[in-house]
Parts: sequence; structure tokens; C-alpha cells
Amino acid sequence: MSISIRDIFKNPEDFLDKEILLNGWIKTSRASKNFGFIELTDGTSFKPIQVVYGKDLENFDLVEKYPISSSLEVSGKVVKSPGKNQSFELQADKIVALCSSDPSYPLQKKRHTLEYLRTIAHLRPRANTFNAVFRVRSLIAYAIHKFFQEKGFIYVHAPIITTSDAEGAGEMFQVTTLDIDSIAKSNPTEVDYSKDFFNKKTHLTVSGQLEAEAFAEAFKNIYTFGPTFRAENSNTQRHAAEFWMIEPEMAFADLNVNMDVSEEMLKYIISYVLENAPQEMEFFNNFIDKGLFERLQNVLKNEFARITYTEAIEILEKADREFNYPVSWGIDLQTEHERYITEEVYKKPVFVTDYPKEIKAFYMYQNEDEKTVAAMDLLVPGVGEIIGGSQREHRLEVLEEKMKNIGMNMDTYNWYLDLRRYGSVVHSGYGLGFERAVMYITGMKNIRDVIPFPRTVGNAEF
Amino acid sequence: MSISIRDIFKNPEDFLDKEILLNGWIKTSRASKNFGFIELTDGTSFKPIQVVYGKDLENFDLVEKYPISSSLEVSGKVVKSPGKNQSFELQADKIVALCSSDPSYPLQKKRHTLEYLRTIAHLRPRANTFNAVFRVRSLIAYAIHKFFQEKGFIYVHAPIITTSDAEGAGEMFQVTTLDIDSIAKSNPTEVDYSKDFFNKKTHLTVSGQLEAEAFAEAFKNIYTFGPTFRAENSNTQRHAAEFWMIEPEMAFADLNVNMDVSEEMLKYIISYVLENAPQEMEFFNNFIDKGLFERLQNVLKNEFARITYTEAIEILEKADREFNYPVSWGIDLQTEHERYITEEVYKKPVFVTDYPKEIKAFYMYQNEDEKTVAAMDLLVPGVGEIIGGSQREHRLEVLEEKMKNIGMNMDTYNWYLDLRRYGSVVHSGYGLGFERAVMYITGMKNIRDVIPFPRTVGNAEF
Repeated sequence: MSISIRDIFKNPEDFLDKEILLNGWIKTSRASKNFGFIELTDGTSFKPIQVVYGKDLENFDLVEKYPISSSLEVSGKVVKSPGKNQSFELQADKIVALCSSDPSYPLQKKRHTLEYLRTIAHLRPRANTFNAVFRVRSLIAYAIHKFFQEKGFIYVHAPIITTSDAEGAGEMFQVTTLDIDSIAKSNPTEVDYSKDFFNKKTHLTVSGQLEAEAFAEAFKNIYTFGPTFRAENSNTQRHAAEFWMIEPEMAFADLNVNMDVSEEMLKYIISYVLENAPQEMEFFNNFIDKGLFERLQNVLKNEFARITYTEAIEILEKADREFNYPVSWGIDLQTEHERYITEEVYKKPVFVTDYPKEIKAFYMYQNEDEKTVAAMDLLVPGVGEIIGGSQREHRLEVLEEKMKNIGMNMDTYNWYLDLRRYGSVVHSGYGLGFERAVMYITGMKNIRDVIPFPRTVGNAEF
Repeated sequence: MSISIRDIFKNPEDFLDKEILLNGWIKTSRASKNFGFIELTDGTSFKPIQVVYGKDLENFDLVEKYPISSSLEVSGKVVKSPGKNQSFELQADKIVALCSSDPSYPLQKKRHTLEYLRTIAHLRPRANTFNAVFRVRSLIAYAIHKFFQEKGFIYVHAPIITTSDAEGAGEMFQVTTLDIDSIAKSNPTEVDYSKDFFNKKTHLTVSGQLEAEAFAEAFKNIYTFGPTFRAENSNTQRHAAEFWMIEPEMAFADLNVNMDVSEEMLKYIISYVLENAPQEMEFFNNFIDKGLFERLQNVLKNEFARITYTEAIEILEKADREFNYPVSWGIDLQTEHERYITEEVYKKPVFVTDYPKEIKAFYMYQNEDEKTVAAMDLLVPGVGEIIGGSQREHRLEVLEEKMKNIGMNMDTYNWYLDLRRYGSVVHSGYGLGFERAVMYITGMKNIRDVIPFPRTVGNAEF
């Protein structure tokens, strides 16, 4: 592979005073009578390198006119820079345009709204904000893998296409090879799913948790990291129809272990990104979210608080303020409640545990009080809930009864009950919405701006 | 987290002669009059640990009767083992059954066919073969991330739901929130896709390449790693409807760089797995594919051969054997041809490049001969093609003309042409079917046996 700007910035001494050949795109360009300056980027480094060329360059007059985003091949020498903005620059003795960019290039050097940039999702990663976002997104993904792999967790690819209905976890997309257009025309009285690809009705998964549990009973510690889908008509800043989720699942682990691992993971990811993307993070802190560093340092420095739902309700009831949603034991906590607890009371991340069983999923472990389940939500300042998890119900009879009570199809979930028949163990897990984590760590406010090609209601472009 | 068997095997000296508490499942169990032996696994290590207990154990008579797969909590001391099969064992002074497995447990200690095990995909990772397969699958996935991240490649999540039709790359699944059942009943003359979730017809992606190209022009080097789908009715050992794919894309990189990187990647993954899963790999070599180590060492030791398609055809035409598919310039190479070249002629991996343009995709770079395109396939002994890639057509006019000639919708792909308008550069990329790689490295012959919950024609269980 050819030399990258990243290589030069990483080990500048190796390149100093050497002749090199560098490829890249023009980010900015200006020229005076005798000198020209190009900020050249090749995308491997958030910071571009400065290319300096003089009147002696044979195509001086041409080069100064190349539009932004033109691709160049530059030959020259890496030298110490006299300028104060960079330590090294490339003194060019030859500049060849590979492709002079069309002047219609929409990303000219001026401020564009994020909304506009969404309409050119194929070009926006070249803009500073998105260049930083997607570099950090990549690093967060890797940090997650690194964290779990170093702990010996097995990465499991949960299925995307599923026949399970996920018990109300959300609206689902149907997946089919039936020809809907000819169904519309031919007027059958009902749809013959035996002719569908899988011989039955199938959907896109909303969670890989149940399958993850099967693997946790074989490998103790596992995690999934894959796309999940919600066909919900919610046009908010925080909802996408297609998003990625991380779902660790641990056998021989109760809710305390679950909290320990989530806390350790979150701190690990943040540290990894701060260390490996200092320029991008500084950019976010300066231009996207002024309180970002403070918020992340607060997470890193503090041991997370751990309170029960019942304690949380007591705190809210005593609160010296009005909430839009009235508080009483049994309610689902709203974002305003969550933020009050984490931002105003604890001023750091807080685990809230042991929620009323009525507002939580069927698979959660029922506590001895018979009123609550061993659920946990991690609330963080600035956002509210970022992780949700639970200890799972591992007692066959208790689980079976719960499933029957809510009318689940016991045949479909018989395999899930098998996990309680053959060496059932205390186990726990949680889900982290990957994009929520990216938003939290970059300070970006709209989920559409942290996904390469976002899919939301009415939008599946590119 | 509690102590894992992996921890003990990793640093046995830390545990020697110490009292510990260990959780796990019974893999095998036998007892004589005065002693009992349990092979205990907790899934963190391919090899179980031996638990020894004596008559002095208060529940000796009970313990010896616990069925396979029962979950236990064992307290005891790690000691040097007198046995010849292991160096360490756990001398138990207390054994508590957490859940005595139901005697109907289907994975009793006897040989099961792989076909049968597929029907219990939720339990099969507890069987040796699948325990090894899925541990290695996880390691390969991580090795791929590690390889690219260490080279500074950006991980891009290509969209799963797409409006693009991928130009004949394969049959697609439709994704919809339309109520097909009521369409069947209500008999409209045509389907109103403006009422569908995305206001238009959408499908599951067959490749993220085009989107990957957009990101390569922003970051130079990127890779995707995500699920892709084919709704093909091909019931073979090598086809699944849902599989994962890795698609690196590199700017300022021609076909040679593409070959360099694929070769380096493949060698890296194999080395990583051999180093990090020695027991599993030995198992595969002994019980699944006797020639495995030899085959993998052959890949590691050799520089891959590089020949053109035209040279390949010459070799095949001179071959001293009959092929089922007759050979002449212009044909698509069949597996028998590929295997002859790699297994009998070169006896090592071979890149075949520069295929006739008629048999390759529209986006491949047209060579100066105007007859061939800068495509590459990597052929490996024992399998045939494992990687396919190309240098991409980066010249706007050439690409535009090709797309028009095959009747593509130019509006849909206008964004793709933008990449050639605004600083187009020579770029290349390839696709590696993740499951194909897992099969190749483990010696497993059926793709259904390397996917946690495989989806194939007529099958989407669990």
C-alpha cells in the first residue's frame, strides 16, 4: 500500500527530509504570487497535511486552480514546518491531478446544515464532522470487540431473519420472497406462506437475546454485535429503523456481575476512544458539545451509583420540582425522571435495579418479593438510559407460568425452555444500542448523523 | 466475574494448591467405589477440567448420579494431577448441584450426526465439534477486525435494508410493513408502496460494496463486516440465505495492492487462529479434516501465485484430463477448473486476474485491451474460489456508458457516479464470505454447521 498521511503523523522522524509520493484530496487551497498551499487529506488522519509548492513548479498556474476535492499525486520532501499550525509539511516538487473535481462539488468550504448533509450521505464523510463521527464509530466498534475478546467472551452472530415474534419488543419488518404485486392482482383469500422462502412467515430480528442465552449456556460468556430492526413510526432524533446492538450474556452471573461488566465496558470504550482519536474528540468537544470532555471524564472518574427502583421512586417523590409525568410506585420511569436522578441527584451514572414486574419483559428473574424483577437500567447524565439488562429467569416453572400467563406460543419457545431443563444456571445480560453509545461519546444529537446510511420512516436512500 | 476454567489453564501456577469455587456443567461423569471423576466444563475452554471427589464427600452417592449437563458449583483445591491426560485437577470438597439436568437431555455421550445436531441448534454448541467451531468463528471475526484496525482501516456498517437492486448480484428478499394478508383479501389492482415503511419497495442487501466505495473516497482504507442475504433456491452445502461478508475497499490502490492485502489478511487470520485456538484446531485436524494443518501451513508458507485468466485458460487447455465443462477463452471458470489450477498445477493459492468483461460485474475497471476487466479471484486448494474482487472503474465516462448499456437506472445510481465526478481515484476492493473462511479454516464441509442458527431454503428455526 502507498504511504498514508497517518503513517507520516505517526512516525514523522522516519519521513523527515525524505522524498515521498503522497496521494490525497484537496481540502483547501490558496496561493499567493510565489507560493501555493494545499491542505491535503487522504482520509487516514483527521488532520490534513500541508503541501507547499513554489513558483518553480512547472504547472504552478494550473495547480492553484484545482477545485476542492480534486485528487492529487504529490511528490516532494517532508520537512519541518515553519508554520505554527503544523510541525511537518510536504514541500512539493511535482503535483499531478488524478481527477480535477467537478465544480458542482456540493461540499465547498462553507458551513452546511446537518440536515443538508444527510441528503448527500455518500459525500458527507468527507466533511470534518462526519469524518470524525465515522472514524470514532469504527473505533468504538473495535473497542467493544477488544473488550469482550480480551475477557474471553465468544462473539456470536445472532440470526437476522427470524420466525420468533420477540414478544412485543417492537414492531417488526416482514421478510418475504412472495410476489406481493401478483398477490394484489390475483386475489387469493389468504396468503400461502408455505410458498414463502422459509415456508413460513418471517421477520427481521428485534433482539438476539434469546439465542444469546443458548450460547451463554455453552460458552459461559458471549456477546452479540449485529443489526436489529424496529418498524416503529417514531420520527425522533433517537430512533432508527435499522441500528446495531451489542448484547452480552453471561452464565453464572447475577445482576451484580451484569452491572460490573457494563460499567467496566463503558469506561473501557470511552478510554479507548479518548486515547485513539484525540483530535476527533477535541473537535467534538470544541464544536459539537462543549461539555463533552467533562461528561466523559465524569463517567471515567466515578464509581457508578446503584439504587433500586423503589429507592428511585422515593427520591423522585421527595424531589423539589414538578414532573410532567406524575411519580408513583409502578410507573415506568420517563426521561425527565431518569435525568433528574442522574444529573441532579447523583451527578454521575446510576444503575436503577429491581423494577416492578408489570413494566418489564417476561424473561426477567422474579425477585423474592414477587413484585419486582432483577432488571437494571444504566442512566447517564445528558442522556438518560443507555443500557438495559436483567438477570434472566432461570427457573423452569416460574418462566413457564409467566409465558403461559401472557399467552405466548409454547411450541415456538420450547427450545428456550430447554435451556432451563438441561443444566439451567443463573445468568444475566444487557443490551447496548450501538448508535446511542456513538451519540453519547461524540455528542452528536441525531441518530441519523452517526449512521453511514440511516434508515428511518420514509427514508432508505442510497 | 467468577473464576473460569480458562483462567486456571492460562495461569495454573496462580491457582495451585488454592481453594477455589468453580461453576460448570458435567461433560462426563464416572465413579468407582471410593472415587468419582467429573469432567467439568464452563465453556470458557475447549478442554474441560477434571474434578475428583472422594467417599468423604457428604453427598457422594448423589453426585455420582447427576446426569450429564447438570450445572454444578464445586469448591475445592487445584492440585497437580497424577493422571496423564491433564496437568491439573480440582480436588473437590463440596459439590452442589445448581440444576440437575433433565434425563431427556439429547446430547448424551454418543456420536450424533451433524444433521441431527442441526435440529437442536440451541444445544449443539455444547457438543465438542460445535464448541470448537463457534469459538474459532469468534476468533476469526476478531482477527479480521484486528487486522484491518491495526492497518488503520475504518469499519463501516453498510446498510442492510436497501432500495438498490444490486444489479443482478443475486435474488433478493423484500422487506415490508405492508399487511400482505389484507392485500390478499382486499384485492387492490396494484400495491401502493407509498404506504410501505420507507414509502417505496425495499430489499435486504446482497452487498455493501457500492456504499463502501463512497467511504473509501473519504477514508482511503475501509472495510465492511455485516450480514448479507441471497434469496436463492440453492440447497447446497455452501449456500445460506443469510451470511456475513467482509468487503474492504481501498482508494489509491490498484489490483496489485488488492492482491497484496487479501494475501496478507488470509495469512494473518490463519496464524491468529492457530495461535489462539490450538486445541480446537488440533481437534479439527484429528477428527474433521485430516489434511487441515497441511493445507493451512501450505497457505502460510507460500507466496500466492498470480496468473491472468488468459494464462489460466492456456493451462486448462493443455491439461492432461477431461473436464465436465469444456474450456475455451470466455467461459466462466468452474470449480473443477479452479481446483485443477490451484491443487494440481500450483499446489498453493493462486490469484487469477483480468477476466473477460462479459462474465464480470459492471463496476470493474476495463483494461486497455478492452476485452478484459481488472478482476481477481483467489483460488485455494481444497475449495476453489474464496475471495473475489476487482479494481473498480473510476473513469466517469467509461462507467456511465457501461451502466447505460446494461440498462441500469441512472437516477438510482447517480450518487455512485458522483464518486467519479468529485475527485475520482483508482480504487480496489474485494469480498470475503465469512462463513466460507470459517469452513476453510475449520475443515467443516456444510455451511449450516458454521452458523449459529442457519437460514436456508425452508429453514428459519429458532
